[in-house]
Amino acid sequence: MFDKEVYISRRQKLVSLMAVSAPEGKRGIALFIGNVDAPAQYKSNGYKFRQDSTWLYYFGLDEPRFAAILDLDDGTGTLYSDDYEIDDIIWTGPMPSVASLAGRTGLSASAPYAALDEAVQAAKAQGRPVHFIPPSRYYNTLKLKELGLTAPSEALIRAIVSMRLVKEEREIALIDAACDLGQQMHAIARDAIGVGVVEQDIVGKMEGFALAKGWGVSFPTILTQHGEIFHNHSHDCTIEPGRLLVIDAGVESNDSYASDFTRTYPTGGRFTAQQRDIYTLVYQCNEVAFGMIRPGVAYRDVHLSVARRMLEGLKDLGLVRGDVDEMVAAGVAGLFMPHGLGHNMGLDVHDMEDLGEDLVGYDGDQKRSPQLGLGSLRMARRLRPGNVITDEPGIYFIPALIEKWKGEGTNAAWVDFSKLEAYYNFGGIRLEDDVLVTADGARRLGPNRLPIAPDDVEAVMNR
Amino acid sequence: MFDKEVYISRRQKLVSLMAVSAPEGKRGIALFIGNVDAPAQYKSNGYKFRQDSTWLYYFGLDEPRFAAILDLDDGTGTLYSDDYEIDDIIWTGPMPSVASLAGRTGLSASAPYAALDEAVQAAKAQGRPVHFIPPSRYYNTLKLKELGLTAPSEALIRAIVSMRLVKEEREIALIDAACDLGQQMHAIARDAIGVGVVEQDIVGKMEGFALAKGWGVSFPTILTQHGEIFHNHSHDCTIEPGRLLVIDAGVESNDSYASDFTRTYPTGGRFTAQQRDIYTLVYQCNEVAFGMIRPGVAYRDVHLSVARRMLEGLKDLGLVRGDVDEMVAAGVAGLFMPHGLGHNMGLDVHDMEDLGEDLVGYDGDQKRSPQLGLGSLRMARRLRPGNVITDEPGIYFIPALIEKWKGEGTNAAWVDFSKLEAYYNFGGIRLEDDVLVTADGARRLGPNRLPIAPDDVEAVMNR
Repeated sequence: MFDKEVYISRRQKLVSLMAVSAPEGKRGIALFIGNVDAPAQYKSNGYKFRQDSTWLYYFGLDEPRFAAILDLDDGTGTLYSDDYEIDDIIWTGPMPSVASLAGRTGLSASAPYAALDEAVQAAKAQGRPVHFIPPSRYYNTLKLKELGLTAPSEALIRAIVSMRLVKEEREIALIDAACDLGQQMHAIARDAIGVGVVEQDIVGKMEGFALAKGWGVSFPTILTQHGEIFHNHSHDCTIEPGRLLVIDAGVESNDSYASDFTRTYPTGGRFTAQQRDIYTLVYQCNEVAFGMIRPGVAYRDVHLSVARRMLEGLKDLGLVRGDVDEMVAAGVAGLFMPHGLGHNMGLDVHDMEDLGEDLVGYDGDQKRSPQLGLGSLRMARRLRPGNVITDEPGIYFIPALIEKWKGEGTNAAWVDFSKLEAYYNFGGIRLEDDVLVTADGARRLGPNRLPIAPDDVEAVMNR
Repeated sequence: MFDKEVYISRRQKLVSLMAVSAPEGKRGIALFIGNVDAPAQYKSNGYKFRQDSTWLYYFGLDEPRFAAILDLDDGTGTLYSDDYEIDDIIWTGPMPSVASLAGRTGLSASAPYAALDEAVQAAKAQGRPVHFIPPSRYYNTLKLKELGLTAPSEALIRAIVSMRLVKEEREIALIDAACDLGQQMHAIARDAIGVGVVEQDIVGKMEGFALAKGWGVSFPTILTQHGEIFHNHSHDCTIEPGRLLVIDAGVESNDSYASDFTRTYPTGGRFTAQQRDIYTLVYQCNEVAFGMIRPGVAYRDVHLSVARRMLEGLKDLGLVRGDVDEMVAAGVAGLFMPHGLGHNMGLDVHDMEDLGEDLVGYDGDQKRSPQLGLGSLRMARRLRPGNVITDEPGIYFIPALIEKWKGEGTNAAWVDFSKLEAYYNFGGIRLEDDVLVTADGARRLGPNRLPIAPDDVEAVMNR
């Protein structure tokens, strides 16, 4: 249900947040450029349209080729786009006018798309600041160049981030619904696993469901027996016995909210002893993280607690040795989990990534670590009610990385490189849930948590 | 099977075709820019990668961020891209070097991506022509701007078009395979039609199949009870009884070749008398076109013959009146079929559209008509063996267009506007096959032509 009050009130809040950026009369304008169709083969054959998330958040209009300007001094706003002509209408059917769409989202004025240039040049000529966010797409890069705009506005980014980081009740309901679809899709995938099945067949089943019930997948599906390769998007292998299959995938709902889950399955339905040891440890890390999530806790500390639990377990298995505190401080866990524990999620699966990872995920007093793993953490902030984050620990055995550390002697005091050779064909394991920070703790999103305990996974695979 | 000889020989032929563009020593270079990932939500969350078709045709390398320069004077070529670093390899797995990929496609030299700029500037400084094709994507537009290149090369476009218009035996086999997938996908869709079904559910089933067995759909699926709206990409309606459902969709194979079929179904499995009359006429038009396709015949003339047959049928139904030859000349058919009869198909579903519709689809002595319908014809040329074209007549009743003609009195001598009012809720019908021009005639592509005769359609829907 399109409710223009939602967008009016978000824009009012944004304008009021921007009031701190300059004295009254000097605040200038905020420019928003919606997405255009993204060409796939050629300009008129586009990918499925996906609106810019910041645009959706403040304007809600889910069609291509809009722009808007908010006047930060007087609070008014103008929608820019072009009305359809009769020749277009043969192809598109009757379309609402731009003026009526402006009304739909609660803006009082509208103008042709080309008038955007004039409005920006007029503001510049008057010495008024023109605030805008960094471009997420090449079209926006081109458009900003045409407009002579080069430096995105940190004030605008900070204001937007402060709003989008804390999800409203209606957003939480929409994310829960996207997670429901994500969990259903994962169940379809899990039930399709079988030795001899081609990976692409499972991916097709999953993405077909995502397209039937939502916008599609919220990011390119990772479905691989090489879990140690994080962004492996080829699906041409046949499922072999005795392997681990990592499925990291989510649905974006028709309302444009994301879900993002990862499960790792033994291809034949039963873990080997070696697989079960590592799997159990990753599962424990997932639970350790969830148990810590509550307002006031820095997610950076949750990441470090997971690193500690992971190193304790790897020490029990004899793969590392020595003092766990020292290992955590030295970043030994990065060899096994060279990524962060999680990220914000909302309209984007990595929410607001193009607004700047540090502006989104780090409090003012937090600095990003240079260490492998912790350095990739996208969400370090102290948690607040309404944050939606992922909890996704993993353990991987990446031969090229192990050989690099071994060759350099990196952390050689703690890592038993010879023992790791038995894991060169292991692959990797990741287990991911989506979590809402509540007033006094945390709630996993989606109505039906995917089976995750090792016994439960084997049970559901051998029904 | 990647066969570098295919790409070497295509490039040799291209270089030899470009020899006519200038005397030896003055031919310059041809620049090719492969696609990069297209951002969906944010830069690192891309749509499924789709390589540029011209790049695929001449180089075959199906990964992002390549460029190449062919020296048109000495025939050598250089591949530009960047080798992966260890930090990338964690995310991507071990990757072949750029030098080895150059070898894979039969190029003798390789260089970092940044060296492309240098090479282009060096050529310009020496006064050598830099030939390039028009950009299909905004990234390429940006890149060409950065390189200071503004005017695409008509000589290069003409040379490429002359090659890609005539499909090689291996391409025909690949298109046949894509058509096989397209026909299977259409059968899945047809079997899912039922009153009360939500359109998006059928689309999900179709696209899931396309993703399981191919790259995905070759263009955004058209599946609509409003067939009179040509590019209707919303799928949120529920299927109602007594309507016509147009399904215009194709699969792009894993080898990047397209298929493109349209069928129109009575939603309840039986045509009404009014629907059957119009359907039968469109079916006859499809057959008339196929019967004319052979080398030497201009596809523009096939379009006009279809217009004639259509007007004869509409005259029999009392919707138009008067001399059919005069009506064809006046463009009366454009009211009912405001699009062209077909287009070339290959690596692109509208093959080479961004190289320029007229350069692709019109012989030197043919001019594009200004008439509605005929003016949208993308393929007018005299047919040659190896051409692959679509045969897709349609009849639509578009209230906004009918009202426009009526209001203006356009072709009022021939059109009985009052009779057309009974068709304002009709929708539209289109019936499309993919056709290969053979040495002495034509062959429909794909192993199993989708049922098309009205009785056959009803039979297959009521099995």
